[in-house]
Amino acid sequence: MSDPRPIGVFDSGVGGLTVVRRLREEFPRESFLFLGDTARLPYGTKSRETVERYSLANVGFLLARDVKLLVVACNTASALALEPIEKMSPVPVVGVIEPGADAAVATGKKRIGVIGTEATVASGAYVRAIARRAPDREVIARACPLFVPLAEEGWTENPVARATAEIYLAPFREERIEALVLGCTHYPLLKTTIEATLPGVVLVDSADAVCEAVRPLLTPARRNEDESEYHVCVTDAAQRFRIVAERFLGRAIDRLEHVEITGAG
Amino acid sequence: MSDPRPIGVFDSGVGGLTVVRRLREEFPRESFLFLGDTARLPYGTKSRETVERYSLANVGFLLARDVKLLVVACNTASALALEPIEKMSPVPVVGVIEPGADAAVATGKKRIGVIGTEATVASGAYVRAIARRAPDREVIARACPLFVPLAEEGWTENPVARATAEIYLAPFREERIEALVLGCTHYPLLKTTIEATLPGVVLVDSADAVCEAVRPLLTPARRNEDESEYHVCVTDAAQRFRIVAERFLGRAIDRLEHVEITGAG
Repeated sequence: MSDPRPIGVFDSGVGGLTVVRRLREEFPRESFLFLGDTARLPYGTKSRETVERYSLANVGFLLARDVKLLVVACNTASALALEPIEKMSPVPVVGVIEPGADAAVATGKKRIGVIGTEATVASGAYVRAIARRAPDREVIARACPLFVPLAEEGWTENPVARATAEIYLAPFREERIEALVLGCTHYPLLKTTIEATLPGVVLVDSADAVCEAVRPLLTPARRNEDESEYHVCVTDAAQRFRIVAERFLGRAIDRLEHVEITGAG
Repeated sequence: MSDPRPIGVFDSGVGGLTVVRRLREEFPRESFLFLGDTARLPYGTKSRETVERYSLANVGFLLARDVKLLVVACNTASALALEPIEKMSPVPVVGVIEPGADAAVATGKKRIGVIGTEATVASGAYVRAIARRAPDREVIARACPLFVPLAEEGWTENPVARATAEIYLAPFREERIEALVLGCTHYPLLKTTIEATLPGVVLVDSADAVCEAVRPLLTPARRNEDESEYHVCVTDAAQRFRIVAERFLGRAIDRLEHVEITGAG
């Protein structure tokens, strides 16, 4: 059995293309349809109600384009809206929280930190997901709202990034965490600064774990690698998003399309 | 002649309440209906097309609630969408760019800096507005995208704010500007840090000038001051916006309402 339809991936912005990048390395024969809701980002400072409404609209868009599997690359949407998305979707759905929790537990570390947006941290989703797998772990979650605009500004290793990391992450040093989950698609860009602020701490990027979650749910395509397509849709076509998108994806985008999404799912 | 209807004010977020605050000091008998588009903020990183679409939808909402005058408190919306708003509106419209340019010229300074969002600066609106009034002034505009999240995080006078201001504003020192227009409703919160980075530079806050622009267009209300109403609507009701809103307004809000805006004007 094979299925040539694309894998649908959405994120609030283009940060989720880092997830597509990892999926592509793992599944080079697959085509991808990515939707970045750049007209309404960020999600991480907004309410559950708004995040859910936007997420269902995004899923409606991807389903209408006939995807065979849905990846919710946005941590905030995965934390706040996965259940209604699963209810709505006739195709399998993979979020990033559960795979991230798997990866955190797999480090074997006892004291685990989690960083994410205000909405992700307030939801408690990572803490619950890790506790379900390994109740013996101590988990401390903390919101780092300024990391997103810093990554978007390209200020990932300058004095501002270092001073910000120091304020957000210093308490983790005192709490002696041994692993840290990067619970937002933007954070891997700040890896160097985070490592310097928390030396010796194992950083967990859920993008790796997402591939393992996708594998058993995937009816693979049978095409040659060079026939796979990377189609990116954005709801706002500002030039800044185009530039950032190719950097995140690490290759040229075959088709960049500006789409309008107004419905509520 | 008198008109009891409220003055309508909108901004991408709740920062525009600083404009309402100044208007209230100047026109204490007026009622205000404020709309903060918190579900879709920020506007400053998005395209002209998106900003225009959102702005017209906001205006449609305020007009449907029967306001007698419209104030576009958002610099980005004023810079990118004022013309279509004026075309659509049967009531007078006041943006913040023209009043801000008036105030900048009124300082009498020859070398003028302007800071704003990426979209505001890219539009060239302030540079053109000042040149129309006083072609002899030298105007240099620069985007400071991180100032908005810093103000929202409440990091207005810490090491991160100072390091950020140094990176964005140091070039203005070399260019020896004498006045600086704070071209975003969030920036007045960073006044102390900006002043410390650019000692001796006159800071121009367009909120003051907006009152002068409103005065000749206003058919005043005749009620007592204690009968005026402050009604705030937001498109996302996250708790963070409630807290910030009362801080910006400097008084209790009589009615905070969560509204949904999906149309395109």
